[in-house]
Amino acid sequence: MDKKTFALWEDFMLASMEDSAHDKEHVYRVLANAMVIAEAEKAVDYDILICACLLHDIGRPDQIRDPSLCHAQVGAEKAYTWLLDRGFPECFAQAVRSCILTHRFRKNLPPQSLEAKILFDADKLDVVGAIGVARTLVYKGTVSAPLYTRMDGKISDGREDKTPSFFQEYCYKLEKLYDRFYTDRGRELALQRRAAAVRFYENLYEEVTQLDEQGKICLERHLG
Amino acid sequence: MDKKTFALWEDFMLASMEDSAHDKEHVYRVLANAMVIAEAEKAVDYDILICACLLHDIGRPDQIRDPSLCHAQVGAEKAYTWLLDRGFPECFAQAVRSCILTHRFRKNLPPQSLEAKILFDADKLDVVGAIGVARTLVYKGTVSAPLYTRMDGKISDGREDKTPSFFQEYCYKLEKLYDRFYTDRGRELALQRRAAAVRFYENLYEEVTQLDEQGKICLERHLG
Repeated sequence: MDKKTFALWEDFMLASMEDSAHDKEHVYRVLANAMVIAEAEKAVDYDILICACLLHDIGRPDQIRDPSLCHAQVGAEKAYTWLLDRGFPECFAQAVRSCILTHRFRKNLPPQSLEAKILFDADKLDVVGAIGVARTLVYKGTVSAPLYTRMDGKISDGREDKTPSFFQEYCYKLEKLYDRFYTDRGRELALQRRAAAVRFYENLYEEVTQLDEQGKICLERHLG
Repeated sequence: MDKKTFALWEDFMLASMEDSAHDKEHVYRVLANAMVIAEAEKAVDYDILICACLLHDIGRPDQIRDPSLCHAQVGAEKAYTWLLDRGFPECFAQAVRSCILTHRFRKNLPPQSLEAKILFDADKLDVVGAIGVARTLVYKGTVSAPLYTRMDGKISDGREDKTPSFFQEYCYKLEKLYDRFYTDRGRELALQRRAAAVRFYENLYEEVTQLDEQGKICLERHLG
């Protein structure tokens, strides 16, 4: 692929990004993850893969404006039409559309092609490790969700939580990603980055629960 | 102090909180920090301290609505008027007002009383450690700031940055807190929690820069 084509796709991506949890740097990280994963695979179509990575989240602003929309579905159609309008071959536009459509967790829509599996894993890698923790916290800020909630007055670790919070998302989503990778390299990279996320969650949980207990004991002494 | 008075102040606080980086749990953590710090001090007026802790951020919603306002100033006046209206003595309302007024970093407005110094330290402790990192990231989400920016195409570590980002705030603010505590116990607690924040920043920086470099090398191979 030539640099001019890359710049054309990149510019379309840049014009389509908005919120800070899914900003352009997320796209560049997904592209980088995909490139690293692809090195371990044979017969990767790099044009399809690179284009799909750059355009995979162009449907995000639509989903933010109307949460009933699925950004993967909207983005897939947007990319398809845009590519055809710019003279790319039908089969290429279709392959990119299919990658974008299946990059989310959807039981009935698993990624089919090798490029789609690589994009899926590359995107999931950005929810793993320290970067996964950072992006989840940023996202919690955009939707005004708390770091944790309480059950019977005690800070809950998130495992049994029904209410959205960072601890809940960590336990329900971030902790459970590791067996969902399609490529060996993707899983390997995820496991390498895992420790940083676990450590942060544990540090945070320990800090807030210890403080809460100590504070309560001290406070009790001064309440009649 | 009796539990009824505590509940009166707590209810006023609960009715005054809004955003998730400065939510009620922040207030409970500040109160807990203050109680733990106070144990190491002599002659603390717990009524003033507890009331000031509970009400220290009641001016936040005003500052969010109008960023030209200082939440410490607004909150101090709000608390003062509210306490007088509820029949608390003038000197008590004044002492609480003074604590709230000086709980922010302001060179010309340092905390004066012991209770004001404890509140200041207790509030700063919530910007330290894993909780400090978590709250800063949540805040970055609410203002749509990025995790990092680039200089000459390379991911910047935040130290020389002019543009707001998580890395910039970590280097400019979070890293520089440790010599700003007024109480020995406050500084001691901050240093105990420091490692968790440093580790997270380092993990995140390493993850994103390594990935960026690897990704670029792999991508170069496929761009003509």
